[in-house]
Amino acid sequence: MDPDAISKAFVEHYYSTFDANRAGLVSLYQEGSMLTFEGQKIQGSQNIVAKLTSLPFQQCKHNITTVDCQPSGPAGGMVVFVSGNLQLAGEQHALKFSQMFHLMPTAQGSYYVHNDIFRLNYA
Amino acid sequence: MDPDAISKAFVEHYYSTFDANRAGLVSLYQEGSMLTFEGQKIQGSQNIVAKLTSLPFQQCKHNITTVDCQPSGPAGGMVVFVSGNLQLAGEQHALKFSQMFHLMPTAQGSYYVHNDIFRLNYA
Repeated sequence: MDPDAISKAFVEHYYSTFDANRAGLVSLYQEGSMLTFEGQKIQGSQNIVAKLTSLPFQQCKHNITTVDCQPSGPAGGMVVFVSGNLQLAGEQHALKFSQMFHLMPTAQGSYYVHNDIFRLNYA
Repeated sequence: MDPDAISKAFVEHYYSTFDANRAGLVSLYQEGSMLTFEGQKIQGSQNIVAKLTSLPFQQCKHNITTVDCQPSGPAGGMVVFVSGNLQLAGEQHALKFSQMFHLMPTAQGSYYVHNDIFRLNYA
């Protein structure tokens, strides 16, 4: 598979899991993974998912606008850059966001999220 | 120096060079570097700077809103995520943008841009 196809499949899987079962994201991170969420740094899969599941909204829907991807180096990783909007249940206006992932290969031939940086794009 | 200080210094240097002398950015990229600019992929320092210097505006000023940074793995790189706005000469409204860089160490103890992804954030 080419990097664009892998990144597109990853992005679809990531946000559909986020929207349906946030706790299920734990398998996409490892102990060395880091999330920076609106400037707050969190390390490790359990801590990251604890943060994501404690966000102050229950239902949400991510709509993706753009996905860009590049190979990140000889280790076989790739950087993925996403823009889109996030609709929270009961809110009239969606929030625009940008997010980047650095995916690294696992021993099993899949990928995990090594780096994750999320920012809302305030108007 | 810690990664946050390095990334902040890099971001200040990158955008001040962009705004004052775009062609001077060539030294920040290498042959294996890749830029994705609004979805268009360009590889190699000369091609990247040719793209940046051919953008259809002469004077501009980047104002940075946020800089987030994480170590990217055992090779000593780091990912840097920037949001801000871009004021073009003669335009009333600034353009909002998000950009990510993957910096890798050089043999000389500095850093170069291995990955660069730029997107305007349309309102």
